[in-house]
Amino acid sequence: MQRSSQASSQSGLWLYGLHAVRAALTNRQRRVKRAVLTERAASEIGKPLLGRVRFEIVAADAVSRLLPQGAVHQGAALQCEPLPKRDLENALAESAEGRRIVIVLDQISDPQNVGAILRTAAAFSVSAAIVQDRHAPPESGALAKAASGALDIIPYVEVVNIARALEELGKLGFWRIALAGDGEAPLKDAASDRDVALVLGSEGSGIRRLVRERCDVSAFIPMNSRMDSLNVSNAAAVALYELRRG
Amino acid sequence: MQRSSQASSQSGLWLYGLHAVRAALTNRQRRVKRAVLTERAASEIGKPLLGRVRFEIVAADAVSRLLPQGAVHQGAALQCEPLPKRDLENALAESAEGRRIVIVLDQISDPQNVGAILRTAAAFSVSAAIVQDRHAPPESGALAKAASGALDIIPYVEVVNIARALEELGKLGFWRIALAGDGEAPLKDAASDRDVALVLGSEGSGIRRLVRERCDVSAFIPMNSRMDSLNVSNAAAVALYELRRG
Repeated sequence: MQRSSQASSQSGLWLYGLHAVRAALTNRQRRVKRAVLTERAASEIGKPLLGRVRFEIVAADAVSRLLPQGAVHQGAALQCEPLPKRDLENALAESAEGRRIVIVLDQISDPQNVGAILRTAAAFSVSAAIVQDRHAPPESGALAKAASGALDIIPYVEVVNIARALEELGKLGFWRIALAGDGEAPLKDAASDRDVALVLGSEGSGIRRLVRERCDVSAFIPMNSRMDSLNVSNAAAVALYELRRG
Repeated sequence: MQRSSQASSQSGLWLYGLHAVRAALTNRQRRVKRAVLTERAASEIGKPLLGRVRFEIVAADAVSRLLPQGAVHQGAALQCEPLPKRDLENALAESAEGRRIVIVLDQISDPQNVGAILRTAAAFSVSAAIVQDRHAPPESGALAKAASGALDIIPYVEVVNIARALEELGKLGFWRIALAGDGEAPLKDAASDRDVALVLGSEGSGIRRLVRERCDVSAFIPMNSRMDSLNVSNAAAVALYELRRG
């Protein structure tokens, strides 16, 4: 037990939960240092994926001891290296055919929200999530768990300056939409058939002025006036759905 | 401090956070027993709303001591009675003119998810949220905080039997849609101009068979096959947006 808690504090990054673990094992960029599984989790994940790593079969409470208190691990945990840093150009080059969508998260700091946004982004075939390196949550088990595997699917691109990244996206032909309660037009009228960069701000302070000025249009999600706003991950889900709805 | 923690454990229900507190003070059905605010929170909430109650001005850490550890209260907390129980008929009778939407939550137990769903439901003018009394989270501070005021806006109707409530809704002319990954049709084709009951299941086990059999149609949100599902509150947001999109 002593060793486990030491490992936990020195580890850097533990991923946990069946979806997050499966996605990490599927991702060739992901370097796994240690895999700790219950018998049941190992059989759910299956031999083809587990063939990639050496793993230890343990009891559920031994998995718990490696992780932060209360972590819902479903019997599966991986100690990993963080993913190699990605740049925007390289992330876009890899994205599938068809109309591209990227999301730009302006200082959204809560790992649960960012994880939930990545999960939705993967569901709606987003090419990359762009965040500011100094104001975004780092890769973590909690973020990866909320992302339900999407952290190993969607390139997570950390940039120094969000406004500059938006200039770059503009030059690449992306239509830049700032999602804001006081936007100029309902999202369905502000969308476009071009590649799209969707910019989301934090719930507290919204999108910063300098970032918003780099967008081509601001758009809102029509809603009942008795509510100020949606939770940011719900707003992201609605906006991505609208952009992919056709 | 001793008194505070006793009060907290005996209290029943503390609501906290500016949105939740404002909404509770606005709701005439809500009986407030005690209001504890920082000077700043009191001035943000304003005299017209605070006129309804006697309140104590205290320091922020005195508010914290009344609440569960880590509660993000923004300097505002109310000790309240739970809302009077509502029945479906009475909730529907009060709903505004126009096409009605109700949501039916089949055994979704996480208070954060239920709170986030209520928030979105209020934003999209839902008439009521129907839950099963024995398998739904009770009113709590955490639920109310995630709901950002919506707990005091959307009637929260606890029923004994969800399948029977759906039969009743069918007789009232509601078109009952079960949202499920393996649904028959994309949601935009399964929707209807009639009043709608949207049924959502838990992330783990989905909608129970007997509940699903009471629906007129099952529908899915189109998404990339690499993801199994959306977070349930994100799925609710997308579905309610689609139903109100027109």
